Amino acid sequence: MNTKKPLILVTNDDGITSKGVAALQKTMRQFGEVVVIAPDSAQSGMGHAITIGEPLRLNKDDFFEGIDAYSCSGTPVDCIKLGIYEVLHRKPDLIVSGINHGANTATNVLYSGTMSAAVEGAMEGIPSLGFSLCSFDKDANFENAMTVVEKVTAQVLKNGMPEGVCLNVNIPECEEVLGVKVCRQAHAFWEDSFDKRLDPFKQPYYWLTGDFVEQNQADDTDLYWIDKNYATIVPTQFDMTAYKAMKEIENWKI
Amino acid sequence: MNTKKPLILVTNDDGITSKGVAALQKTMRQFGEVVVIAPDSAQSGMGHAITIGEPLRLNKDDFFEGIDAYSCSGTPVDCIKLGIYEVLHRKPDLIVSGINHGANTATNVLYSGTMSAAVEGAMEGIPSLGFSLCSFDKDANFENAMTVVEKVTAQVLKNGMPEGVCLNVNIPECEEVLGVKVCRQAHAFWEDSFDKRLDPFKQPYYWLTGDFVEQNQADDTDLYWIDKNYATIVPTQFDMTAYKAMKEIENWKI
Repeated sequence: MNTKKPLILVTNDDGITSKGVAALQKTMRQFGEVVVIAPDSAQSGMGHAITIGEPLRLNKDDFFEGIDAYSCSGTPVDCIKLGIYEVLHRKPDLIVSGINHGANTATNVLYSGTMSAAVEGAMEGIPSLGFSLCSFDKDANFENAMTVVEKVTAQVLKNGMPEGVCLNVNIPECEEVLGVKVCRQAHAFWEDSFDKRLDPFKQPYYWLTGDFVEQNQADDTDLYWIDKNYATIVPTQFDMTAYKAMKEIENWKI
Repeated sequence: MNTKKPLILVTNDDGITSKGVAALQKTMRQFGEVVVIAPDSAQSGMGHAITIGEPLRLNKDDFFEGIDAYSCSGTPVDCIKLGIYEVLHRKPDLIVSGINHGANTATNVLYSGTMSAAVEGAMEGIPSLGFSLCSFDKDANFENAMTVVEKVTAQVLKNGMPEGVCLNVNIPECEEVLGVKVCRQAHAFWEDSFDKRLDPFKQPYYWLTGDFVEQNQADDTDLYWIDKNYATIVPTQFDMTAYKAMKEIENWKI
């Protein structure tokens, strides 16, 4: 029997000083040896961005008592790459990302730095989990989320992960989480708008704003179950091939 | 019969001054009314990043004779959002992104700003195409690529696009492109390494480098056909749900 403790790499996209990553590293300590590598500033909305036009900085400091922790000048995906290839010099047994401050349901998975770190982990063949608390309240309570994180992590360490897959776990902020549902990514989208302003020199600049709209509501999606106070798990893959569309496009005979 | 010319939004990730976007807007003019909105600097590797922590700038200038063109301080996905919601104030009939300087085959689709712009277009329900020339040579010849771009664009305008799908089109740089293959995204990955250096103040910094490695070579992928001098079309979707993994994870009974 292998009694060696699993090596767990923790990251996020809200930055190393956020409440969510503090909660996540704390929850992970019962499961193994924990190393944190997280961005030195907020990296929300960075998607799967990597830093190639400039170099990266890595700063080891006493961010959390008793474990190795580093801040990084790059994106969440940079943190995973630096973690594996420069800090740990081996693949960890588990990658966890979050707990994100705000939902990563539906198509937000594409914009999410939190989830992109988990997707990068899946590409490396490492069981990887992204966790998000569906609240933007700065005083949001991470306690319920930590219970879900604990349950899901225990199952992943026990069962392993299907190949090419990571998990997108969203947790509602409510009095009582009613359960955990495995479901699909909702097809909801941002109806964007831009807040156009003039700077002190009378030049325009634009703030991205918008409303998140679900056009075809369905009862088998993450949005549906979060709204009913269930935590959701969407198995998420990095193969973006639309296999079902291949035949139709082949018929074009280009 | 609708004889109105299609409205075509052109973007890229190499920036508004790159050769690839010049070639692309030129090729598009025969198909409709062309508007270009592209980043004001190189945005390679930005993935699906959006700019939310700071405002965006948009600068209209005479980048290309006879058409409206704008540079934007943000990412390729920002360009699409600004294009639809601030510049055009309606959905264009077609979005084209590229021609990228370098391949976006295999899992590079996730890191690619060029392809993320096309994926964003698919999320908006707009037929969207990302084009990449598989050469990083700064004197790369875009002529062959333009012929493929022309053929694929004509078919998309004629046939429309399956729902939730965009096309990832890669074109080899060679004497003669032998044909066009519809295929899947190869499962190849970056084996990263970091070039660690010391700055003049003796502090370390890290450059991301790496080798692109295909572990399980197959004869039905974009990498396979590019290597044989065929252009490749991978239908690409924004639904990242790993449907095949759902049952296994449900059995965990969390």
